[in-house]
Amino acid sequence: MGRMSSAREKLFLKRAAESVPVLHECVCRPVGEVVPRKSRAAFQGWQLDPVSLAPKPKAWSARIHQKNNSSFILDFGEHLVGYVECTLAVVGAVIDAPMHLKITFGEVPSEVCEPLDPYHGALSRGWLQDETFNLIPREKLRIERRVAFRYVKFEITKPSFSYGVRFTDVTCRAFTSASAKKLAPYRGPKEFRDIDKVAVRTLANCMQDVFEDGPKRDRRLWLGDLRLQALTNEVTFRNHALVRRSLYLLAAFAPTNDLIRSDCYVYPKLGQGGCTILDYALLFAPTLLEYARASGDQKTARELWPLAKFQIDFVLERFIDQRGLFVDPKKYWLFIDWRSGLEKETPIQGILIFALAQLAELARHLGLAREIPAALAAKEKLTEAARKYLRDPRTGFYVSGPKRQVSWHSHAWLIIAGVITPDEGAKLLKRLRKSKDVVMPAGPYLYHYVVEAMLLCGLKQEALDLMRNYWGSMVKKGASTFWEVYDPKNDHLSPYENHHINSYCHAWSCTPSYFIRKHFR
Amino acid sequence: MGRMSSAREKLFLKRAAESVPVLHECVCRPVGEVVPRKSRAAFQGWQLDPVSLAPKPKAWSARIHQKNNSSFILDFGEHLVGYVECTLAVVGAVIDAPMHLKITFGEVPSEVCEPLDPYHGALSRGWLQDETFNLIPREKLRIERRVAFRYVKFEITKPSFSYGVRFTDVTCRAFTSASAKKLAPYRGPKEFRDIDKVAVRTLANCMQDVFEDGPKRDRRLWLGDLRLQALTNEVTFRNHALVRRSLYLLAAFAPTNDLIRSDCYVYPKLGQGGCTILDYALLFAPTLLEYARASGDQKTARELWPLAKFQIDFVLERFIDQRGLFVDPKKYWLFIDWRSGLEKETPIQGILIFALAQLAELARHLGLAREIPAALAAKEKLTEAARKYLRDPRTGFYVSGPKRQVSWHSHAWLIIAGVITPDEGAKLLKRLRKSKDVVMPAGPYLYHYVVEAMLLCGLKQEALDLMRNYWGSMVKKGASTFWEVYDPKNDHLSPYENHHINSYCHAWSCTPSYFIRKHFR
Repeated sequence: MGRMSSAREKLFLKRAAESVPVLHECVCRPVGEVVPRKSRAAFQGWQLDPVSLAPKPKAWSARIHQKNNSSFILDFGEHLVGYVECTLAVVGAVIDAPMHLKITFGEVPSEVCEPLDPYHGALSRGWLQDETFNLIPREKLRIERRVAFRYVKFEITKPSFSYGVRFTDVTCRAFTSASAKKLAPYRGPKEFRDIDKVAVRTLANCMQDVFEDGPKRDRRLWLGDLRLQALTNEVTFRNHALVRRSLYLLAAFAPTNDLIRSDCYVYPKLGQGGCTILDYALLFAPTLLEYARASGDQKTARELWPLAKFQIDFVLERFIDQRGLFVDPKKYWLFIDWRSGLEKETPIQGILIFALAQLAELARHLGLAREIPAALAAKEKLTEAARKYLRDPRTGFYVSGPKRQVSWHSHAWLIIAGVITPDEGAKLLKRLRKSKDVVMPAGPYLYHYVVEAMLLCGLKQEALDLMRNYWGSMVKKGASTFWEVYDPKNDHLSPYENHHINSYCHAWSCTPSYFIRKHFR
Repeated sequence: MGRMSSAREKLFLKRAAESVPVLHECVCRPVGEVVPRKSRAAFQGWQLDPVSLAPKPKAWSARIHQKNNSSFILDFGEHLVGYVECTLAVVGAVIDAPMHLKITFGEVPSEVCEPLDPYHGALSRGWLQDETFNLIPREKLRIERRVAFRYVKFEITKPSFSYGVRFTDVTCRAFTSASAKKLAPYRGPKEFRDIDKVAVRTLANCMQDVFEDGPKRDRRLWLGDLRLQALTNEVTFRNHALVRRSLYLLAAFAPTNDLIRSDCYVYPKLGQGGCTILDYALLFAPTLLEYARASGDQKTARELWPLAKFQIDFVLERFIDQRGLFVDPKKYWLFIDWRSGLEKETPIQGILIFALAQLAELARHLGLAREIPAALAAKEKLTEAARKYLRDPRTGFYVSGPKRQVSWHSHAWLIIAGVITPDEGAKLLKRLRKSKDVVMPAGPYLYHYVVEAMLLCGLKQEALDLMRNYWGSMVKKGASTFWEVYDPKNDHLSPYENHHINSYCHAWSCTPSYFIRKHFR
C-alpha cells in the first residue's frame, strides 16, 4: 500500500469508469387509481383499494374549485426507480393564477396515506419523496428528482379559484442496469416464484450506476450490501461489470493507512463515504473472491488483492488479543445487524475467520501460493481460540462479550466460519429456536447469514421455513420489493425513529433469490 | 361590428404581434443582508435593518447543522421584476441527502417577515411568491418563475445533517420594456423628484410584454390601468408601441355583441379576460384618443374607432333612462374605486359624458366629421340631466343613488366631465374636505381622478398637498414602487382580506409622474 493515494485513486476510478453500466429504460404507466382505507390487517395499517370506477389509465381528473388538499393516488402496480412526468390540462375557465401542487411518492402505502410532517427521524427529512410546485400549469410537468416508488399522490394544496386541473399521461421512465433479457428464468414451486420475483425486482431496482443500497435512500454503494447483491446477481442478471465497477469505486477511495470505507457516494458526484464498518471491511476479500470466480476476471482480483489482504492484516495486527480473540477497538463502527444491545465481538471473530479462509482461497485462485500458509495459520489460531474461550461448556452455546450474550448472530457467523461444525451447528440452531433470552436477528441482513448457516448445517427445511415466514410474509403484506428492516410483529420498526424514512427496496434484502435459485430449483 | 369575431381577432392579434416589445435586461445584485425588527413606526410593523457586519455582496453563508428554519434575507435595494438565480456551495462534509430550501420573495417587508400561512385571502394563494425546493445542492439554482420583489428570504426548512450551504452570487436578471435611455429627465424640486422616481419605477416594472396591472399580481392587462399607464408613459418612456399592442390585445378579444372585456390574460398565454367593467369599457375611447394624439398613429385609431364608439353607444342605447341618467343595469361590474358601499351611478354618468366628449374629439381627430354631432348631442343631454337631477339644491353637492350619497367619486368625475364648472368645482371640492359623511376615495386609482379634478379646477396647491400626503407618505414608509391599495391610516387594508396578496407595484398608482411632469416642472 505504498503508492500515493491520489495515483491509486486515479487508476481505480479509471477502472471503475471502464465499467459504467448501460441503464435500460422502460416507460411505465399506472395500473389504476387507489383510495386509502385504514385496516388493522394491512401493513402499517393502510390498505389501498382500487377505485371502483373503470380504470382510466391515461387520464385522472382533479377538478378543484376553492377547495384545498384535493388529491388522488395512482398505483403503478410495482416498485419503480426513475423519473415521473405528466401532462396538466386546465379544466374550466382561464389560468388566472399559479397553484400549489404537491406530489408525494411512496414505496409503501403509509408514505402516501399519512402526513410526513412533523418529522423527527434520525436521517435527513429530504429523503422523504415529496415535491412542492408553485406553478402556472403548462403542458408537461417533469419531476427532476429520481424517485423510487410504487404509489404517487397528486395533491393540489393551494388551488386557483378559477380552474381545475386534469392530470393525463402520468408516466415513469424507469431505469435499471439489470438486463431483463439476461435474467435466468426460475421455474420452482409457486411460493418460491412469488418470493423470487420480489427479490429479483429488489435487486434490479438497486442496480443503477452502481449497486445502490436503496434507490430511495441512501442511494449509496455499501460494501456489506454489495456482497449480498453480487451473490444474488450471480444467479440472476450476471452483470459482472457492475460488481467490478463497485469494487473499484470502494477501492479508489480506500485510505492507505486505515480500513476501507464501507460506503461510497454516487450522487451528486462520486466521493469517499463517511463510514468505516470493521465487519464490512473484512468482507472485501470474500466479495473479491466471489467476483473473481463468477466472472473469471483475474486481472481485477490481482489488482485489488493487496487491498483485500490489507483489511484483514490490519485487524489481525491490531485488534487480536494474546488468546487469539477479537477485541473491540472502540474506534470503528461494528455493524453485524441493527439489533441494539448486541454484543458484536464473537460475530466479528466469525467474520474474521471466514475472511481468512476466503483470503487463502483467493491466494490459491490467483496462484499466490506463498500467501496461503500465513492466512491458514491465523485462521487456525483464531478458530481454536473461539472454540476454547467462546463456548459456554455448561450450555454448549457460544457467547459474546463480558455479559456472555447468546445470539443468533454469533452462531450464524461461527457456523459460516467453520468454528462450529455442521453437526454441532444443526443441534445448536435447533436449541436456539427453543431457548429464551437469545438475542434475535433484527433485519434481513443478518437473516441472510442465518439462512446461510442453516443451509451449511443441512437444515434445509428450517431455512425454507425462515424464508417463508420472513421474506414470504413481506410478500403477503404487499411488498413488491423487499424492505430494509422488517419485524413481522412490528410494522413500524425503524432504526431511524420513523417508519417513513425506511428504505422499502433495499439491496441486502434481495438474497432469497440467491438461496432459492441455488438450493430450491 | 358585423365582421366575424374570429377574423377580427386574428387581424388584431396580428397587429398586437407587430408591436411585441423588446425586454431590456439588467443583472442586479443585492445591496446587503437585512434582519427583521418589529417596529410600530414602520410600514405594517416591520423594519428591515442592515446587518451590522460588512456587506458581502457576492457571498452569504448559511451553514446549518441539524437546525431547522435557518434563514437570511437579502435586500436588492429596489423593486425588481425578473428571474433570480444563485450558486449553492456545500460547506462541511459530503452531500449525503437532499435538503428542503424555501425561497420567499417580498415586495414589502411583511411578506418576508410574517408567515404566509394560514392564508384566507380572496385571491389564489399561488400569487404569494414562495417556492419550495427538495434538492441535492448543485452549482446553480435557477428559479423558473418570474418574481416581483425587493427582498428575498432563503430558508433551509429541512436541512441535511451532514452539510451546510453557502449561497453565493445571488442575482436577478431584471426585465422591463421601458427603455431607461428614453426616460425624460425630471429636474423639479427634491420632494417631487423622490415621488417621481418611485412612480417611474412603478410604471417601468409594470411594462413587460404588455402593460401589466402588477408584476406580482395579476400580471394582466387591464383597461382602466392601461389608460393611466399610457398617460404616464407619454411624459416618461414614450413607448407608444406598447400602448398600441395593449389596445389591440383588448380589442382582439372584445365580444362583437357586448362590452369589451376589461382585462386580457398574458401568462401563460394570451387570452380573453374574465371581467367586464362598464366604466372601463367607456374609457376605451379616451385612451384611444390620447394614444392617437401622443403617437401620431392615425391608422390604429381609425381601425379601433368602431370598437371605441360601440362601447359608448352600447351603454347609451340600453342603460339611460328617459331623464337622461345612467341606471345600473345590474349585470356589469361597476368599479370606480374599491370603496365598499359606494353608489356608482353618478360617477358613471360623469365618465359617460367625458367619454362622449373624447369620442367627439376622436372623430374630429380622424376627420370623421359626421360622427361628431350625435356624440355632442348625447353629451349635452346627459350633462343637462346630471345638472338637473343629481345636484342637491339644498347643499349644492351632487349625489348618487337612491340614498343620495355624497362622494368624492361623483364630484371628481362630474368635474372631469365638465358637468361641474371649474369655479363651482373649486368651491365644492373645498367644501367636501370639510364635510362629514362624505364617501372618501379608497385607493390610488380614484385618487388619480381627484387630483385631475383639482387641477382642472385650478386647485394646484390642493393637488400638490394630496400627492404629498398620499403618494408621498408611501415613499416615507419605504416604498420603492407605489402600492395597489393604500390608506395612510391602515397599513393592512386589502380588498382581498389579506395584506400579503396586495400588489405593491401597481400600475394605476404610477400617475404622480404624469401630474408632476405636466404641472410641476
